[in-house]
Formats: sequence, structure tokens, C-alpha cells
Amino acid sequence: MIELWHCKDSRSLRALWTLEELGLDYRLHLLQFPPRLTDPGYTAINPLGTVPYLTDGATRMTESSAIAHYLARRYGEGGLALAPEDPAYGDWLNWLYHSDATLTFPQTLLLRYGRFEPKDRRQPQVVEDYTQWFFSRLKLVNARLEEHEYLAADRFTAADIAVGYALYLAETIGLGASLKPQTRAYLDRLTARPAFQRANALGAPSLGG
Amino acid sequence: MIELWHCKDSRSLRALWTLEELGLDYRLHLLQFPPRLTDPGYTAINPLGTVPYLTDGATRMTESSAIAHYLARRYGEGGLALAPEDPAYGDWLNWLYHSDATLTFPQTLLLRYGRFEPKDRRQPQVVEDYTQWFFSRLKLVNARLEEHEYLAADRFTAADIAVGYALYLAETIGLGASLKPQTRAYLDRLTARPAFQRANALGAPSLGG
Repeated sequence: MIELWHCKDSRSLRALWTLEELGLDYRLHLLQFPPRLTDPGYTAINPLGTVPYLTDGATRMTESSAIAHYLARRYGEGGLALAPEDPAYGDWLNWLYHSDATLTFPQTLLLRYGRFEPKDRRQPQVVEDYTQWFFSRLKLVNARLEEHEYLAADRFTAADIAVGYALYLAETIGLGASLKPQTRAYLDRLTARPAFQRANALGAPSLGG
Repeated sequence: MIELWHCKDSRSLRALWTLEELGLDYRLHLLQFPPRLTDPGYTAINPLGTVPYLTDGATRMTESSAIAHYLARRYGEGGLALAPEDPAYGDWLNWLYHSDATLTFPQTLLLRYGRFEPKDRRQPQVVEDYTQWFFSRLKLVNARLEEHEYLAADRFTAADIAVGYALYLAETIGLGASLKPQTRAYLDRLTARPAFQRANALGAPSLGG
């Protein structure tokens, strides 16, 4: 049985959304954000104290986009994955890695230094620097969506879940109005999916939402 | 022909090291860091202005750990990769994603706000926050290396290249003395590899090294 530790609106939504898209059975553990502070026993389960945390037999995973990739490859007959032989395989991988390292991390700085830190430790310059950085790094997404409905191979895959979450997070923290029209429309298509809506309905709001 | 745009000591070392491990033919374009500023024509090639940039036929890639993953899967008969059927596949994926999203990004904050920004825009608090953050996130690496020589499946794979670069970067920016002994020894084993040494010898120092 797959088990997932999740906080609403956090990066673990990538894992939960993928589980719902694939129609898999799983056991969900809902935590309040940040779990390291709200659930002192949690580091006995995941030493990093972060979400997501996913177990599947002996497999232990902490990286949200890696989990989307893993589930897509292992389950659902690979319907959300691209095989290494696919001409778009390299692009697909690039979107998956891009989603977190390039598109989500800058947003965590906005949250930390704009909201979560005590007032005397907030850093408006960092918030401004990484807001600008986030939008400059959206160039590849914006360019792709001018011509295509999905990121890789013209069908919905785990890459859309991984990048879609980064765009959803942008909306959650107030950056949604600055998205390009084609990127806004893409986010709307993704969040209208029944699997996204089921995943997103689970848990209590915790990111100031 | 594979082409790679690279700056010495930057994340593109992951791609170059992987190419050298696999013994592939490639054309190398050496740039000074940061290429967006030192080579104004570069954004016509890679719109993000970042390194690495890799092309392989119609494939275009910008994410260093994705490139290591891609090359490992596509070339060398998968000798640096784990197949989805491998029991350690999920762990392998997790290390690959962890390497950049969790272990490299915090270090880019140390570089930006400790070195690259003009003095009046430097942020000692951010440097301190993300130094602490980096070492707290090294827990998984440290724990794994207490019992094993490599990260996944007890053999050298692209996961070691991806995480190894994050440790090498830590050493480059002055954090090497704070690594745990087993992690220090692992980094020494990795950087002693002939393919690492060949890759690392290419290009002129640019990260203050």
C-alpha cells in the first residue's frame, strides 16, 4: 500500500494529484504546515521533516516531482510518462526537473521572507528579486504554451502535474494576475481536471489561503 | 552530435562529467559565468541565458540533473541509470531530483547574496539561513553514506554525479570543512574519478575559484 504524508497546497499536492490521476489506492496522512513544527513526531517518519513523504514498499521518497515521475512510470501502464525511446523524452525530463528546481524554489523564498518569518526577519528585497526571477524563468513555459496545449508530446503527462503545481502555487501566493494569457489558460485547464479537484479538496487550508 | 554550453564549476559540470563518464563524442562551448552578462548573443541560443544548455538532435535541455538523467538513460547501455523495474528505482529518482531542487538551490543564494550582488544588496541573514538549511537537508545523504559507498543500488550512477556536484559546489564556496567524514570521503572518491578530472579541467575558473 502506497502511503503519502501531505499538507494542503504544499508541494505534496503533486504526489496526491498524480495518485488521483492514476486512480491508485493509497493511505493519506494529512498534516498542518509546516509539519516539522506542528507534528513533533514527524521527523521520526521523515528525518527531513518535509512534505511530501511517500512510501511504497521499501521505497522512500521526499521530492515531489520525483514522486510524480515515479508513479507515472511505475503505474497506469506509463500513461502519464514518456518512454526513453520517445523523441520528446529529453524535453519531458527537462520539464519535470524544471518544475521544482527552477519554478518552485524561488516561490519558497517569497513565502519565507514575505510571510512566514517574524516581521523583523522579513526581506522585501529577496521577495522582489525572486518574484522577478520566477517570471524570467517562466519563459520556456510561456513559449511552449503559445503553440501547444501540453508541455511534452502534446498529451497530458506527469510534466504537466509538476509544472502545473508551480503555477498553482504562484496563484495561491498572489502572482496569478501576472501570468501570460496562454499560461493562465493552461493553469485553468489543469485545475479543472477532476483528479486535481479531488486532490485539492483534501486537507485544511494552511498556506495562508 | 551532442552540443553542451558550459561554464567552469557551474551546474553544467553535471552534464560534462556525465558525457565524460559515458565516453560520448560532444561539441563543447565554453562560456564565462554568468553567460547572460558575458555573452550577449547567448540568449538567442538559450532564451533563459543559463547553463547548462544541451542539444541532442531536436532535444533541448536546461536542467543539469535532468541532463545527467537523460544521458544515463539514453547512452552507455544504461550503465549509469536504474531501470523502472529496479527495486531501487524510486530512491534513484529521488536522489536525482534532490540534488538540484534541495541541495544546489540553497547554495545559489549563498553565492548571490554573499558574493555576486553589489555590497549594498548583500544579505548576510539569507546567507546564514540557507547555509543552515543546506546542512540540515544533507541528512539523507549523510545517513545513506554511513552504510553505503554510493547513493543507489550500491553502484556508481548518475545520482552520484548529480549529488556529487552539489557537494563539490559546497567545497568550492567554502563549506567543505563542515561536511561529515563519510560525506567528505564520498566527495573525495567521486572527484578522484578520471572522468570528473577530465571534465573539471575544461574551461577557466569563474566562480571566484
